[in-house]
Amino acid sequence: VIERLSLNQATVKRATLAEAVALCVAEGITGIGLWRDRVEEIGVRAARELVAEAGLRVTSLCRGGFFTSPDWPADNLSALEQAAELRADVLVLVCGGIPGGGTDLAEARARVAAGLAALVPRAADMGVRLGIEPLHPIFAADRCVVSTLGQALDLAEPYPADTVGVVVDTYHVWWDPDLAGQLARAGDRIAAFQLCDWLVPVPADNLLGRGHLGDGRIDFPAIAALVAAAGYTGPIEVEIFNADVWDAPPAETVRTVRERFATVLR
Amino acid sequence: VIERLSLNQATVKRATLAEAVALCVAEGITGIGLWRDRVEEIGVRAARELVAEAGLRVTSLCRGGFFTSPDWPADNLSALEQAAELRADVLVLVCGGIPGGGTDLAEARARVAAGLAALVPRAADMGVRLGIEPLHPIFAADRCVVSTLGQALDLAEPYPADTVGVVVDTYHVWWDPDLAGQLARAGDRIAAFQLCDWLVPVPADNLLGRGHLGDGRIDFPAIAALVAAAGYTGPIEVEIFNADVWDAPPAETVRTVRERFATVLR
Repeated sequence: VIERLSLNQATVKRATLAEAVALCVAEGITGIGLWRDRVEEIGVRAARELVAEAGLRVTSLCRGGFFTSPDWPADNLSALEQAAELRADVLVLVCGGIPGGGTDLAEARARVAAGLAALVPRAADMGVRLGIEPLHPIFAADRCVVSTLGQALDLAEPYPADTVGVVVDTYHVWWDPDLAGQLARAGDRIAAFQLCDWLVPVPADNLLGRGHLGDGRIDFPAIAALVAAAGYTGPIEVEIFNADVWDAPPAETVRTVRERFATVLR
Repeated sequence: VIERLSLNQATVKRATLAEAVALCVAEGITGIGLWRDRVEEIGVRAARELVAEAGLRVTSLCRGGFFTSPDWPADNLSALEQAAELRADVLVLVCGGIPGGGTDLAEARARVAAGLAALVPRAADMGVRLGIEPLHPIFAADRCVVSTLGQALDLAEPYPADTVGVVVDTYHVWWDPDLAGQLARAGDRIAAFQLCDWLVPVPADNLLGRGHLGDGRIDFPAIAALVAAAGYTGPIEVEIFNADVWDAPPAETVRTVRERFATVLR
């Protein structure tokens, strides 16, 4: 399964895109998940050339979405253009929290659905696949009001699967009692599969509480088997947000990513 | 609605039971949710006399459960006896996390179902109502593998509603996209309704990240309306785990609890 490994560049937060690409090549990793801030540092065209010359597949671009922010349309159009030029498998959508420090969760969710409806035709025109990512409920207030895979699938369902899919990240969905049923339902809507572990105790900065595979409490073989049973055969990204991982030498981090992936999903 | 307010004594963590009871009387609060550690300090009989003399209703006893720990049977029998003697409306069950630092979530959930099956006949014999409390998914690994109201209802459903109910705590369920549907389904299984707010950013110790009503991002009127529509007319507890709230003078905390309750649920 190692040939399906893709490095999400957020895992080596301090590395430039050129450095991250070189690390993938050094470790025999054939895919990379990109982040817009690192792409924009060198420009989209240069980024495209860099990954193409290295023979890397762009397994995702992070991120569009944030439909509950006033400036979402311009930002998402820019993200679509970048995703198209990078030939990314999917543009990951993090849909946004409750706006303005408020409490109206229902209204925020309605905004997400409306934003998606506006964005989908543009994505279809540009040949970009959108991936709605449910985020762990700990982020529901301030980052993403889409909290379960079932909810993401409800949002995706009105649209063709090759235009609107879902992103399955173990960190966000591992706890869901309905995970098996919703993964089976997801089928060919699974646009990306991302891995990182759930650490206990949860670190103080919960945004950075993710761990290397095997360091936490997630049953990766069980979830991988469900994703496989749903028919997904695509790349598998490792994406770790963690201050200690980011402080480690990037080459060491990528080596650990590769080793753990091979061990956990053997 | 103020006559339905009950003070969960965890909100005044540093107060003894006698102090908490006196604070309820002083503020005209007619119900109290008890914790076993504070009850055991003075003994169950003395605790019963204390609340009865003050004219307080015991709206809950926290807690039984932790079915994934080896010593759960003895501890739960003790909890049942205490709940019966205190004439508590419900014994709250916090069901336990994944045991032994492991990753087998499915097995942990099976243990919870098995533990419940063993406990229910004893509870029925003793006339104690059990309340399964789903905890926020942030606690799924280390505290409670029951993460949604729907999952709690699935566990409760094989048993009579007056023996096995569910505990609805806004902090744990507010984010759930299926909340309206599951509350409607819950109906007379709602054994307790607890309130506290979701703070942003989430404090470093996420166990203590709860706030006074109105300080966070939960839409209390919306959730209270759903609970009312489900037919629940019982007490409404305020239960806040928060280091700052605990460090405040208890009398001030209880006054704030009462004021915020009246404002938010007016």
